[in-house]
Amino acid sequence: MAIACNRQILLAETPKSKLGPEHFKLTEGEMPKPAEGEILVRVRLISLDAANRAWMQGATYRSAVTAGSVMAGGSVAEVIESHAPQFKPGDLVFGDTGWQEYASVPAKALTRLPKIEPMTNLISVYGIAGLTAYFGLLDIGNPKSGETVVVSAAAGSVGSIVGQIAKIKHCRVIGIAGGAEKCVWLKNQLGFDEAVDYKSGALFKTLKSAAPNGIDVYFDNVGGEIFEACLAQMNVRGRIACCGAVSQYDMAAPASGPRGVPGLIVVKRLRAEGFIVTDFFDQRERAIAIFSPGFSRASSRYRRTSSRDLRTRRKR
Amino acid sequence: MAIACNRQILLAETPKSKLGPEHFKLTEGEMPKPAEGEILVRVRLISLDAANRAWMQGATYRSAVTAGSVMAGGSVAEVIESHAPQFKPGDLVFGDTGWQEYASVPAKALTRLPKIEPMTNLISVYGIAGLTAYFGLLDIGNPKSGETVVVSAAAGSVGSIVGQIAKIKHCRVIGIAGGAEKCVWLKNQLGFDEAVDYKSGALFKTLKSAAPNGIDVYFDNVGGEIFEACLAQMNVRGRIACCGAVSQYDMAAPASGPRGVPGLIVVKRLRAEGFIVTDFFDQRERAIAIFSPGFSRASSRYRRTSSRDLRTRRKR
Repeated sequence: MAIACNRQILLAETPKSKLGPEHFKLTEGEMPKPAEGEILVRVRLISLDAANRAWMQGATYRSAVTAGSVMAGGSVAEVIESHAPQFKPGDLVFGDTGWQEYASVPAKALTRLPKIEPMTNLISVYGIAGLTAYFGLLDIGNPKSGETVVVSAAAGSVGSIVGQIAKIKHCRVIGIAGGAEKCVWLKNQLGFDEAVDYKSGALFKTLKSAAPNGIDVYFDNVGGEIFEACLAQMNVRGRIACCGAVSQYDMAAPASGPRGVPGLIVVKRLRAEGFIVTDFFDQRERAIAIFSPGFSRASSRYRRTSSRDLRTRRKR
Repeated sequence: MAIACNRQILLAETPKSKLGPEHFKLTEGEMPKPAEGEILVRVRLISLDAANRAWMQGATYRSAVTAGSVMAGGSVAEVIESHAPQFKPGDLVFGDTGWQEYASVPAKALTRLPKIEPMTNLISVYGIAGLTAYFGLLDIGNPKSGETVVVSAAAGSVGSIVGQIAKIKHCRVIGIAGGAEKCVWLKNQLGFDEAVDYKSGALFKTLKSAAPNGIDVYFDNVGGEIFEACLAQMNVRGRIACCGAVSQYDMAAPASGPRGVPGLIVVKRLRAEGFIVTDFFDQRERAIAIFSPGFSRASSRYRRTSSRDLRTRRKR
């Protein structure tokens, strides 16, 4: 093989407030040399997740991404050179390669992927976003038919899938998103029952109109004021699936938490539970079934919508 | 029967800040006249619980206690006159009588109690406090042998029992209480492993020294800054049993929530869950077994300690 160089995106500087292009730097690194048990892969699609921003703030469930290092992130990649029996050149895998063209990753840290078209589905419905939505909504939120599900960052990669799965499960679904355009998209394209534009003001009141029977499951991607507004409207024995806290990621120091914690959690017997998608990777097959052709015959509307949406979103 | 009057304690005024004797008024009301299906009871022991204060703030899981009405509360009471087949004069019951000498209560809202000595055990280990501690710690917190359990308001009626049950379950137990005297009592009399005086300052650091391996179960009675300090020291997959928010009850408006909600809940995959003891009343027998003579032969130290403590506390 004659590969000249390995393009990499470094985190040039740890952001102290809003993240921007100035915090990154494109560079050319050396080609990694896989050791025994490692696999050299070529990155095909990088999964850009909100969690990436959180990793820059400090140690979370993984070490912090520090200035000067290759930006961390998962990707769909193709095996180029294998030093482990379970993979061969041409295999598709998912792994924590970082934002670079080539990476050398221990074989045991890679997950084999099927070859499907479009390949982008492997980082959307079948990837971090889809698996996060699936396990967070169903295993943590546990919605029942007829219940009201609210999801924040609803037009995001995870939120948009959460709402669609909730519709498959016969729930009333309300998305919270920023801006009228996103809200129209959620209702008209994805089939959400209601969409609330948090930027239009009067969030609490608008949400109340959209969820007149209260909230049974809140899938939280944002924390902060939106968490607070939802918490106050939760029904008794409601569940909050804590997936992320996007509203906090651009802050240098953590803000105060939502009012009503823990008072309303007690009074309403709520359960707020956090999760990380990687904890569910061993149950990946179960999740993928909901998006598979077999399942989609029964709920083709949502599967078709989902694929179309994700294509649409990539064009923006 | 010739009973002259019914002494009652009214909530004279809704407190806007710290609760004091000035918010109550002793008065003489009329003797209640039980209708069909109701039971006239004489109150023997009133259960004074932190939740009583919360009820004055507004509607919770029950209607607010409003100025001018008899203060609400549960009590151990004796049946005086029965208009339902399941109770007869002399029976001991638990019910929501309010703070008065006599009350007329629907038979179906009463729980029959055994006659045990001292009767005070019926409002401590066998009462609201004991049942709250039992179900909150074991069903919500679910501690495992060897885990670290932290309880706030540890010298209170609930907290002191939580710690003792956690010891029975072979946990490392740390109590957070206000003042050196309470802390000495927790360690020397109740057998807590460590006690942290939150009034001495440096709560975070002191707690860290007391729980060097982090916190697996936090039984929260207080909310606020103590919740925040514990949250930051929770271990991955830790559980927070949300029992009350004493730190908030004297406030006119709700304060901001603890920092780290929901960010740390996500990162550490925590579960914070609220509960109300009355939801568990149908499982009362299971809880009482842990304090029963049969059980106490195996763990007599804790049962003896518990009885002695509760007597000691009543004298203060």
